[in-house]
Amino acid sequence: MAVMSLSAEAERRVRDSFARQGFMKKLGVNLVTLDYGVCELGVDFDETMTQQHGFFHAGVTATIADNASGYAAYSIMPENSTVLTTEFKLNLLAPAKGPQLLARAEVVKPGRTLVIVKADVYSGETGREDHVATLLATAICLMGKDGAPKHAP
Amino acid sequence: MAVMSLSAEAERRVRDSFARQGFMKKLGVNLVTLDYGVCELGVDFDETMTQQHGFFHAGVTATIADNASGYAAYSIMPENSTVLTTEFKLNLLAPAKGPQLLARAEVVKPGRTLVIVKADVYSGETGREDHVATLLATAICLMGKDGAPKHAP
Amino acid sequence: MAVMSLSAEAERRVRDSFARQGFMKKLGVNLVTLDYGVCELGVDFDETMTQQHGFFHAGVTATIADNASGYAAYSIMPENSTVLTTEFKLNLLAPAKGPQLLARAEVVKPGRTLVIVKADVYSGETGREDHVATLLATAICLMGKDGAPKHAP
Amino acid sequence: MAVMSLSAEAERRVRDSFARQGFMKKLGVNLVTLDYGVCELGVDFDETMTQQHGFFHAGVTATIADNASGYAAYSIMPENSTVLTTEFKLNLLAPAKGPQLLARAEVVKPGRTLVIVKADVYSGETGREDHVATLLATAICLMGKDGAPKHAP
Repeated sequence: MAVMSLSAEAERRVRDSFARQGFMKKLGVNLVTLDYGVCELGVDFDETMTQQHGFFHAGVTATIADNASGYAAYSIMPENSTVLTTEFKLNLLAPAKGPQLLARAEVVKPGRTLVIVKADVYSGETGREDHVATLLATAICLMGKDGAPKHAP
Repeated sequence: MAVMSLSAEAERRVRDSFARQGFMKKLGVNLVTLDYGVCELGVDFDETMTQQHGFFHAGVTATIADNASGYAAYSIMPENSTVLTTEFKLNLLAPAKGPQLLARAEVVKPGRTLVIVKADVYSGETGREDHVATLLATAICLMGKDGAPKHAP
Repeated sequence: MAVMSLSAEAERRVRDSFARQGFMKKLGVNLVTLDYGVCELGVDFDETMTQQHGFFHAGVTATIADNASGYAAYSIMPENSTVLTTEFKLNLLAPAKGPQLLARAEVVKPGRTLVIVKADVYSGETGREDHVATLLATAICLMGKDGAPKHAP
Repeated sequence: MAVMSLSAEAERRVRDSFARQGFMKKLGVNLVTLDYGVCELGVDFDETMTQQHGFFHAGVTATIADNASGYAAYSIMPENSTVLTTEFKLNLLAPAKGPQLLARAEVVKPGRTLVIVKADVYSGETGREDHVATLLATAICLMGKDGAPKHAP
């Protein structure tokens, strides 16, 4: 997917959308990388991120994998479009330990209406990461919507 | 799944596990209902829960649907067991508006090692809910583990 | 989904499409029930249907569950539309023994473009069925296509 | 997954299992490649393989992708084990045209009990293939079973 490059318009569109997500602020998620068809989101570990055994909660893993996928898809969509994830499947592969969690999403198939995306999630320290989850998602491109979709697509 | 009833031991085991999840406290998620093979989790809307259009973020939806599924599965597992979700698939059906989001999970197939669970998520006000998501998940029962699994199952 | 009734046009459209599927003839799959948003497909067991232990192959289970879902979705779509399944997830719950396998699909959420469908698969003899699989799928409605879609949606 | 090599025992075990699947014979599926954690299955197009528009039926695609995944997983499992696919998710990316369909599966995460596998399906002619589907699956390793599992895992 690295053949085409990210336009300034698409970058602004993705970053504006990301900045409007209150849930990303609450979790402290960072937009680490954004390219044409590619998005990486990262988040730091603390005790408010945990499941019952002290690892990252699967909800955090799912959140950043799904969201990275949505923005990877949105990065290749046209102006005046809106993106929604319609479904995703997540396989949890290993306990997600701190200090960091990173989701890397990449477009698999760019359709005009549907964009299929995969994401892999890594935890641990840079250079010593574990592969903790893998996701497969569908995003839909809605045209001519200014703002929020009111109904199911 | 309502044929058998929840033991006091299982109820305590599930509630203790839930109470140890820092991520549930951060999001303000409540354990609304717990029965044999059934679990409901709820959360209130505020601006820290949002995606880019002001609805509940899909990450919140995924988190409570996955977690309700895990505890529905755990409620039918034996003493001295640990539960993990190994995978789930979520279809997002409609925008999830406030003021509340409720995930209701129910065991579909109780295997000895794997327990298959479905969950449905509803948003809105009591009595006027929208069906906003549906999930299908696999939970695994790990025996004789005291505390955290260290590896992938 | 039983509130509206199946039009004669939709019934003819679904049955014509089903009749054009060479793979259904090869497997001997029958269209057992068709209603508004509902479709049941059945197939008989013989040794050409088996996996390594002599049960129905998961490929047979997946085929009839996916196809029943597609036609449940197509039954609520407008004239001059074409249906495609874009994705599905199947959980295999128990060994699928003969003499029969039945997939019952039902629309969960009828969107204008995307239709979400679930299906359950039962095996055994009438009145003594096992619940052997459950599926969650997305179908897409393509308008104004006369015949085959040439590209990914 | 190419670090370790396929043992003669594992190769025999996989090929014996494959040879017992009546459904593979019925469809004319070939075991094209088998390596440690890798399996490729191929099938030729004819009019008995079709959906309503004359392409490979999604049931064929699902069958070979699921089965390749199961055998990729089985290739890394120990002697005296049995393999079952417990779930898979398939995204259909493009119409699957003839003359051939090939599924390539590769282990993503080798757990002791659960093995996570991905598969990609390609159609067309050698050297000019389309990427028509991608799959994510869980296989389970059952030990000490001589023959068929009688129950859900």
